Formats: sequence, structure tokens, C-alpha cells
Amino acid sequence: MQKNKPCIAIDAMGGDFGPSVVVRGALDALRSDELKVILVGREAEIRAELEAANARDADVEIVHAEQVIEMQDKPSDALRRKKSSSIQIAFRLVKEGRADGVVSAGNSGATLACGMFTLGRIEGIDRPALAGILPTEKKPMVLIDVGANVDCKPHNLVQFALMADVLARSVLGVAKPRIGLMSIGEEEGKGNYQVKLAYDMLRKSSLNFKGNVEGRDVFTGDVDVVVCDGFVGNVVLKLSEGLALSLGRLLKRELLAGFWSRCGTLFSKGALRRFSRRIDYAEYGGAPLLGLKGIGIVCHGASNAKALNNAIHMAATFVKNRSNDHLLQELSVNRDLVQYRRSVQSSSASAVKKLDDPLDIDAANLANP
Amino acid sequence: MQKNKPCIAIDAMGGDFGPSVVVRGALDALRSDELKVILVGREAEIRAELEAANARDADVEIVHAEQVIEMQDKPSDALRRKKSSSIQIAFRLVKEGRADGVVSAGNSGATLACGMFTLGRIEGIDRPALAGILPTEKKPMVLIDVGANVDCKPHNLVQFALMADVLARSVLGVAKPRIGLMSIGEEEGKGNYQVKLAYDMLRKSSLNFKGNVEGRDVFTGDVDVVVCDGFVGNVVLKLSEGLALSLGRLLKRELLAGFWSRCGTLFSKGALRRFSRRIDYAEYGGAPLLGLKGIGIVCHGASNAKALNNAIHMAATFVKNRSNDHLLQELSVNRDLVQYRRSVQSSSASAVKKLDDPLDIDAANLANP
Repeated sequence: MQKNKPCIAIDAMGGDFGPSVVVRGALDALRSDELKVILVGREAEIRAELEAANARDADVEIVHAEQVIEMQDKPSDALRRKKSSSIQIAFRLVKEGRADGVVSAGNSGATLACGMFTLGRIEGIDRPALAGILPTEKKPMVLIDVGANVDCKPHNLVQFALMADVLARSVLGVAKPRIGLMSIGEEEGKGNYQVKLAYDMLRKSSLNFKGNVEGRDVFTGDVDVVVCDGFVGNVVLKLSEGLALSLGRLLKRELLAGFWSRCGTLFSKGALRRFSRRIDYAEYGGAPLLGLKGIGIVCHGASNAKALNNAIHMAATFVKNRSNDHLLQELSVNRDLVQYRRSVQSSSASAVKKLDDPLDIDAANLANP
Repeated sequence: MQKNKPCIAIDAMGGDFGPSVVVRGALDALRSDELKVILVGREAEIRAELEAANARDADVEIVHAEQVIEMQDKPSDALRRKKSSSIQIAFRLVKEGRADGVVSAGNSGATLACGMFTLGRIEGIDRPALAGILPTEKKPMVLIDVGANVDCKPHNLVQFALMADVLARSVLGVAKPRIGLMSIGEEEGKGNYQVKLAYDMLRKSSLNFKGNVEGRDVFTGDVDVVVCDGFVGNVVLKLSEGLALSLGRLLKRELLAGFWSRCGTLFSKGALRRFSRRIDYAEYGGAPLLGLKGIGIVCHGASNAKALNNAIHMAATFVKNRSNDHLLQELSVNRDLVQYRRSVQSSSASAVKKLDDPLDIDAANLANP
């Protein structure tokens, strides 16, 4: 839809704190941005929260949804058995043209599943992907995919790159995002089967492709987008979050002896914990699910009102900037690259390790550890 | 070989500092451990270093090697064109039964390639793997593979687990190593194609298999071994190293304002840099290349004498504990699991996402981001 103001459907029942936090986040977003919101969930509970926030007359629409998807529900069950859940109904509003995007802090697997099944994909995108927006030493960057697609083909990675490019332009305000491909060496020809083929395709694309990046380059901020499959991306996301916390605890233990250092340690540990939270979606409020006819933002269950406000703002920005239209354009410019073609794969396959031959190590390709 | 004392062939020409550091590391190892060393490289240079260290009469054998593999040499070229290089000759000594293992701080890709091609594999191991020994919040743990095999099949991961199990027993002294499989969720059924099948095989094995671990569990120290393919392992290794450095720089910037914290920051940044170095092989001196008839230890180019001493000690411990004999036993106990069988794969394949079907997302399997 999107006439004048973008309209965001918000899963009012999602998150560890339920409607109390979500409603406050939505009200904050209404005050700070040009947008409309639809709160989806149990009407009585939502009205009670509006009342509690002295916002009985706020300009919000409420759409009643009887069912709630719990955190422990399996996505497949949620999809099948909870057809009148707040998450499903929120996505249905987008499908029906009554809203432009969905924000949910509920069960993230279920949100992904409902988004994909209800909205459907943009033409040219085979697999919608989940993007993480991560802090770096310089500006924030996009990591894509962070867990929606654990088994990918090379052309999927090219589609991820195009989606992240549009996100980085539209939400992070980067004019010509620098795209890096996650690999195990900077030189062309380093990487696994999937990455070597994707490299070749990205090089031919219209993107500002900077080649391979290694694990050690993720947080320096020298690229704006890091592309990988959802298995690698999820490991990177959780490893980074966990390592920051582990280092905080190690520092505390290592430094607690000295007096001088004790004061600094408190600061350091706090800073590392803050960093870990920023990885964990807080900064930008959520992880955008890209490639759908509409947009979905998956927020962390523990999101506070500020995180929800940020997520709603991100969804609205994405819609206002007509990001999906730009994506369609990019897809059309790179049409030849984003389609799965067995011929492309076999022609390049000779350069690639044969998996069935046990010790056919391509010595020139051994990772420099 | 191995009669009484293990004998380690040392690439005297490897590393950024050449024979000066390597010879000192070898002399330190001789003093602190029951072992023999053979220094392989240009004899005159080695003798000069022994002289400089007042160790002209030290009980070391020297085997002359005319050629030196440079850091920038391609492994495949090094293998083909530098047949009388110190690295190749060191591995040949093991092949001929004159030594039990090799330690090199030279070109790591070339060391891997020479090790694999010269020594050959232990029966039952299709793909030798490179193990990293990483610091955690508790004790050190083994990450395998960190870059030798970027495209793996499930049975390769099982072989990696068996090799790492033996390493953790023999070198880290863990009685019954807890084995974790790197994935994107703890529950069975999470992961990509390769990991789901490997889970099933590891569960049936004789190993102390603890199930899946996520990125955030790597540094808590709750498992002794984390198993993954060489692409994921290399990303984990370099990401951890890089993130520790990035966090050190971020902390410095964030905290430099306050006086109280400035003192602590110096400590924190130093500690984070030390952590990054420990990931980077310093603690245990090197990354063992497992699965060969013999052992190879790949050291970092910037290794100092202490790191080389540690690496030589690790190689000697591995040999003394007859680790490869134990590996053969483990392989025989798990014979049915470590062989590639297409039938195993197809029978489980129904549980696994079909890769050619674009939106066949298995909703129950979506990663909880």
C-alpha cells in the first residue's frame, strides 16, 4: 500500500514482556516518526495498555487476534495451528494491502515462517534472508544471511548481496555500499565451492564488490555488507555475541587483583556487555527479513520499548525509501546472475575441488591458517 | 620409529626470523623434555646459530636442505619445484622412519601440502585436518578443522571428531573429552545438511558426544572439542582473533576520556591483545595437522622461541602417548561410521531440506536467531 505515511503492523503480543512494552514502543514511534501503526493482538489487553500509558485517544488502529504464538511453539506448528495468531494476522494485513510491514518481538522462527508463507517472495528472490545489523570499529554494517537459509547455492548469495545493498543504502544511508564475501582468504579462488562460484558472479554484478573478506575483517568496518550463508552467518553472530561476554568475564578475573585496574575493569566489562547487546539487535531494534512482498523485522524477545521503537522506525524507513522497488530494479539489472543455472555451475566446476575424491586437495587453495 | 625418545624434525628455515629463533626454540625443548631433534635446513646457517647460542656441542642432528620455501610461494609450486626444501625433507625424514613428527613455522599452506603428500594418511582417515587449540573461560579446547578442508561430507566431520578426541586426551590431558558439533541451535535437527547427518553419526559413535554447540558456546569452555568443516573453523578462528583486537581498540577509544578508567584500559587492551595472540597459536605453539602417518605442527610465522619450544613439546607428547595408535583403535571401534556410504546419506536425506526447491523452508528448522 503506502499512500502518504508507511503503515506498520505490530505484533502486540510478542516479546518477553508482552503488550506493555510493545505498546509503549509503538507510541514512542508514533511520536517520533511520520507513520501509522496497527497493533495486532488481544484487543482488551492492548486497550488496557493504552489506558495505562494515558494514550486512550492515540491515533492507532487495533486489529484483534485471539491466538498468541508462544516462544516454545515450533514454527511449523504455529503456522498450521495458530492461524488467528497476532503474528499471522499482522502479515495478513500486509498481504491485504492494509499495512506495509510487520514488527514482532515474538518467536523468531515463527515470525520468519509466517512472513515467508503469508507474504510470498519478491519476483527474482528464491530465498528471503535475515539480515543482522552489527556494530564495527567504524559504522554499522549488514551481515546477511544470519540464519534463515542454512544450505545455499551461489546464486542465493548473490541475491543476499543485492538485498543487503538496498538495505544499507536505505536504512544505513550508505551511498555505494562496499560488499564483501565471507571467505577464508582475501585472494580470488579462496573459499569453499559455493563461495568460489559466488565470487565470480558478484564480480560480474552491478554491485560495489570488494572481494573476499576474512573473519578478522568483520568488525574493522572496512566493508558495509558481509555476505555468507545462514549457517556461517548464524555462527558469526552468536560467536561475536558470546566472545564479547566471555572476554568481559575473563578480563574481570584477570584484572580483579590490581587496584588500579579494578576501576577500569568495571568500565571495560560494561562496555563489552554493551557491545554484545548491540550485536544482539538492540541498536537497530531488530533483524530485517528481506526479499518478501513487504518487510518483516524480527526483534529479540527481550526487546525494550526503545528497541521496538527503533525496529518500527527501521521498517518505516525501508518502506518510505521504496526499498523493495529499488531491489526489483537491481534484480532486473543483474537478471543473468541471480538465476540458478546448472550450466554456470558446471562450467566453473572444474576449478573447484571434487568432493568425492578424498585426497584431491587443491594445494594452491589450502587456507592460510 | 620412536624407540625410547620421540624424534622431531624441525624446519630450521621457517618463520619470519629464520634459524636464529628456531634453533633457540629447539635447544630450549631439548633441555626441558626427553626428546631428540633434527634440525633441517642450510647446514652452515644452522651451525652458525648453534655457535651463537654457545651450543656447538649440543646433541642435535643436522640434515642439510638446500632450498627454502618462502612465505609467498604457492603450496602447489613449493611441492613441485622445491623438492629439496627444508619442509619437504623434514617430512621425508618421518616417512623414512628417521623422525616421528615435524614442526614448521614456515609457509603454512606448503607445510600442510607437503605433510599430506609426503607422509600419507592413516588408514581410515580420508582427509587430514588442522586443529586449533584455543583459550576459553575454563581450559583450552580443540577446534577442528580450522582450514584444511573447506568442503566436507558428514563422515569427514566424524573423523575430525575422532582425531580431536585423541589430541585432547593426549595433549590436553582430558580423560573423556566432551565433543560438541558446531551448529546454529542446540537441539537435534538444527543445522545444515552436513551437520544434521554428522549429528546422527556422532550420536552412535563411541565418543562422549554432547550434541550441538552454538557460536556463543565456543569460549565458555563447556566442551573440550568443537567440530566443524574447515571453512566454518577458519572463519571462527580469524573472527575470534580479529574481534578481540577490535574490542581492544573500541575499548581504548570509548574509555580514553575518563581518568580512572584510563589505567584499567591499558590493562584491558593488553589483555585482549594477549587473548588474540593465544588464539593465534601462541599458547600451544602451533596447530597440529592430524590424520597423517606421523604428526605435523604448523606454527605461526611470527613464532618466538617459546612458541617453537611449546610446539616441539606438543609434537613429542603426541608421539610419546602413541596417539596415532589410539586413533587407529578409535577408528576401528567406529568403523561403520567413518566410511562414506551413499546409503546412509540417502536414508537420512528425507529429513533434510531439498536444495533445489527454492522455498521449501523447513519451518521447524529455521534458526532461532
